[in-house]
Amino acid sequence: MSENQTPGAPELRWYWEDFTTGLSMTFGPKTVAREEVMGFAREFDPQPFHLDEEAGKASLFGGLAASGWHTAGMVMRMMCDGYILDSSSLGSPGLESLKWLKPVLVGDELRARMTVLGSRPMKSKPHVGLVHHLWEAINQHDEVVMTIESWAMFRRRHPGALAAAQESTPQGHTPGL
Amino acid sequence: MSENQTPGAPELRWYWEDFTTGLSMTFGPKTVAREEVMGFAREFDPQPFHLDEEAGKASLFGGLAASGWHTAGMVMRMMCDGYILDSSSLGSPGLESLKWLKPVLVGDELRARMTVLGSRPMKSKPHVGLVHHLWEAINQHDEVVMTIESWAMFRRRHPGALAAAQESTPQGHTPGL
Repeated sequence: MSENQTPGAPELRWYWEDFTTGLSMTFGPKTVAREEVMGFAREFDPQPFHLDEEAGKASLFGGLAASGWHTAGMVMRMMCDGYILDSSSLGSPGLESLKWLKPVLVGDELRARMTVLGSRPMKSKPHVGLVHHLWEAINQHDEVVMTIESWAMFRRRHPGALAAAQESTPQGHTPGL
Repeated sequence: MSENQTPGAPELRWYWEDFTTGLSMTFGPKTVAREEVMGFAREFDPQPFHLDEEAGKASLFGGLAASGWHTAGMVMRMMCDGYILDSSSLGSPGLESLKWLKPVLVGDELRARMTVLGSRPMKSKPHVGLVHHLWEAINQHDEVVMTIESWAMFRRRHPGALAAAQESTPQGHTPGL
């Protein structure tokens, strides 16, 4: 049991230290179901091309297309089931970019690939580390349909001393949290 | 009726030309309901701090917190009801940044503010224009809890000639779609 673990709670597989640069894992698949596409659209994004077959076909998407936010949600769920729920995840301060590269259509089958781009301790919280990663959604034709580049926070297996953490030099983007 | 409109369809309020730089509109409010937070989390982001009051209190969020993806979905819905559904929206190629600045907790009341940062014709499609905008989610304490900077595509009221469109010089980010 880690020093950082609630007594009696199950050991977690993924702490900050485990996300080594270059690590890449693929999860899923998830079939894009018509009723889920339309249900999400009705609640969050009721544009015609997400709700109606004919409107989808007439749109730039060329078919009944999932809301881009729904695609992000489906990928989030695959990431949760794949590693986040067995990790010391503390949330995310945001995304550096999100690209919807190709339409996601009803009947598509998506996989979710995460690749670690880098990591660093969190200056203000010695028990927290940041992981910089690329998430990709990939369809049944091996086309990358969405990319997300972002930072996430994870509890550390071995918290650093505050002073040691402060010595680190963060590169690039500095999340607000 | 616009030359660009399906015969018999209602006139739309918002075409590409209407999104002038500096235009700012605020929509909502939307109350963050417990059952919606937990329902979204169960489907897309089942991390304990989005599902369980105690886990939320013990987290960096300090309470039962909406998934950041849910916050984005709620803002998308306010934007749809506020202007997108009465526009010539053709979708979005992606986000340049998304920041989750503060927790969104059960019981919060959110508003959604859109501000036009700029626009330009789309080089490859003379009937389409791009709008660069900032979206902000603002809570009942007037705190900005989330920002999104992105591009969106709208049909033009008066499509440009292809040659004229090609003369334009796109600045900065060039969306893939």
